[in-house]
Amino acid sequence: MNKLLIVGTVAFDAIETPFGKTDKILGGAATYIGLSASHFNVKSGIVSVVGEDFPQEYLDLLTAKNIDISGIEIVKGGKTFFWSGKYHNDLNSRDTLATELNVLADFNPVVPQDFKNADVVMLGNLHPLVQSSVLNQMTTTPKLVVLDTMNFWMDCALPELLDIIKRIDVITINDEEARQLSGEYSLVKAAAKIHTMGPKYVVIKKGEHGALLFHNEKVFFAPALPLEEVFDPTGAGDTFAGGFSGYIAQSENISFDNMKNGIIHGSNLASFCVEKFGTERMETLQKEEVQERLKQFKALTQFDIELS
Amino acid sequence: MNKLLIVGTVAFDAIETPFGKTDKILGGAATYIGLSASHFNVKSGIVSVVGEDFPQEYLDLLTAKNIDISGIEIVKGGKTFFWSGKYHNDLNSRDTLATELNVLADFNPVVPQDFKNADVVMLGNLHPLVQSSVLNQMTTTPKLVVLDTMNFWMDCALPELLDIIKRIDVITINDEEARQLSGEYSLVKAAAKIHTMGPKYVVIKKGEHGALLFHNEKVFFAPALPLEEVFDPTGAGDTFAGGFSGYIAQSENISFDNMKNGIIHGSNLASFCVEKFGTERMETLQKEEVQERLKQFKALTQFDIELS
Repeated sequence: MNKLLIVGTVAFDAIETPFGKTDKILGGAATYIGLSASHFNVKSGIVSVVGEDFPQEYLDLLTAKNIDISGIEIVKGGKTFFWSGKYHNDLNSRDTLATELNVLADFNPVVPQDFKNADVVMLGNLHPLVQSSVLNQMTTTPKLVVLDTMNFWMDCALPELLDIIKRIDVITINDEEARQLSGEYSLVKAAAKIHTMGPKYVVIKKGEHGALLFHNEKVFFAPALPLEEVFDPTGAGDTFAGGFSGYIAQSENISFDNMKNGIIHGSNLASFCVEKFGTERMETLQKEEVQERLKQFKALTQFDIELS
Repeated sequence: MNKLLIVGTVAFDAIETPFGKTDKILGGAATYIGLSASHFNVKSGIVSVVGEDFPQEYLDLLTAKNIDISGIEIVKGGKTFFWSGKYHNDLNSRDTLATELNVLADFNPVVPQDFKNADVVMLGNLHPLVQSSVLNQMTTTPKLVVLDTMNFWMDCALPELLDIIKRIDVITINDEEARQLSGEYSLVKAAAKIHTMGPKYVVIKKGEHGALLFHNEKVFFAPALPLEEVFDPTGAGDTFAGGFSGYIAQSENISFDNMKNGIIHGSNLASFCVEKFGTERMETLQKEEVQERLKQFKALTQFDIELS
């Protein structure tokens, strides 16, 4: 079985949307990535850090999804990373109410021996130096390295971010971040500029407006599934990245055509994530539901025009 | 050859975008619809009104595209409808600088005898009473009636708008207008509510984010083609409607599957419209260019996932 190494936060989130609010619940980029990638036939492991306050049941939940948690360090007496946010009425924007780094402040990632030869590495949103450190520990060159990041690191650690971006194959960022990173408003031009920074593949996430995959002159687009209600967008981008990297790891095929499928799988899984608060929907999601919705994606996008 | 009856403005526009500005140039919903529909094998005719100030060369341009202009009334001593607008930097929003109704204020549409049995009727954005009057003049029931409208009529003539909406098959409006008309934020819910107002097919245009086609429980999505630069969005929605209605009129097939193709043709033609100011690009657009870009649409959206 192919191996997928996931790096990212495992955290507490407190979320408020127009539909309600939660106390501290399970969150974090690596959590969402792992839950999403668990829908593929891969051996995945998370590198992260939590405090002693992190419930064993959350760790058990990951283990039950066949996610290797030996790379999740538990800091004695430490407190787990906590994020709190409130979404605006359109759910397209949010205010961060609290960010408590806690044990994340001194995180020194250690890749378990068994994952140093992972086939695919998914570097979830974290400090670029942490992402670099993980890549430095690999003993074999991964078939594909995917990086997710955000505007925060462009503001606070741009040189380090540019360093790691040079070393990866696929970058996934949202539209505003692509504009910030490239200085180009047009997403076509932004992708072209980001190509020159290193990544051969640029994925631009547009939330409810879908995602674009750029590779040189080629472009592919996957819509978000039109839903009656988006309940909570938290983790949708990470779920997308988990579906993409999980599928690629399983299929061992890094052609552009296969990456298209990865984008569809990512969008498909993300469409479930937003249906309930936090990880709730992903925890119970069944294989049959995933397959059924893939059919909806086909119906949504496939057409048959004869070309002359 | 099947007949397409087009109702809408034929007008002067003055446009300002971040890339430049124009004096009074050829514009109007019916103009864009007609130019777009001229790419299909249909006999199309425009019902509209202009003033004596309207240049013969503009009328000749429409005639040269095989558009019947016998339904365009020329008011002696009258002035042509004039619209002026300035786009913001993101090109997604604009300010209207001037709207001079002129001859449009007293427009009483007269459908030429030869178009009273048109196969498809495309009611472009105009006062709902004008749209109704055109439909009243038909001597045979059209195979399909498509209506485009905008928020202005929801604000100023809602009862009249709701009356005409009851009588049509397909409505095309943008996302904000769909929300206003339905009172629903979710576009899925908005489309469901608009279905109950009459139209069996609801097309929601999202500009650079593509277009959705709803029919009962079915949904289809066409992206906008990602372009290096959008130069001037004026007329893109009308060009979309012209491509859709022109294709349906040509193919005589009003199945959902064929409407998907109509949505793709409309999106394809609209992707050209925005490349230059006003109607400039549409005036010179060649069949080969249209076919070539259809291939890009296929590459952009088609994927091949095996479903279990």
